Amino acid sequence: MISTNEYFDGNVKSLGYKTSTGNSTVGVMEAGDYEFGTSTHETMIIIEGEMTVKLPGDSVWATYKAGESFEIDANEKFQVKVSAQTAYLCQYK
Amino acid sequence: MISTNEYFDGNVKSLGYKTSTGNSTVGVMEAGDYEFGTSTHETMIIIEGEMTVKLPGDSVWATYKAGESFEIDANEKFQVKVSAQTAYLCQYK
Repeated sequence: MISTNEYFDGNVKSLGYKTSTGNSTVGVMEAGDYEFGTSTHETMIIIEGEMTVKLPGDSVWATYKAGESFEIDANEKFQVKVSAQTAYLCQYK
Repeated sequence: MISTNEYFDGNVKSLGYKTSTGNSTVGVMEAGDYEFGTSTHETMIIIEGEMTVKLPGDSVWATYKAGESFEIDANEKFQVKVSAQTAYLCQYK
């Protein structure tokens, strides 16, 4: 089954599915500022657009463009700023 | 706005958005056989999984894996076979 998920009043939407190696989502974020929490390790890969991200424990923001990725451990929070609609792949494993 | 789209009784779902260069969707297909029609030129890029595709005018099927892409002109039909949940990016331009 493909799950449909909405967060932040529909400003972030994603579709959930399974691969041979774990669970994934593809999603889209509207322009905005977000704080996300993880329950498992996540690898985020930018598909189109870009995300400016403050990773757990970091004091600086870093910008990730299409094709670039970052990882977050389980049970962490991270902050994301998006200036235009941005698509991403999130792998949970 | 991020649009949510469902086709083939929910076996194909996608999220629509805009980039600086045009309209895009990220989507997921369940295992199955599909025929799609285009109204504009489309570039399909496999994100995870794989698609076996018969392009307009082709008599043979070709398999596209993650990171690979194919293009279809406007007002064409193409056939897709998917053996496991597969995520894609479709750029309309």
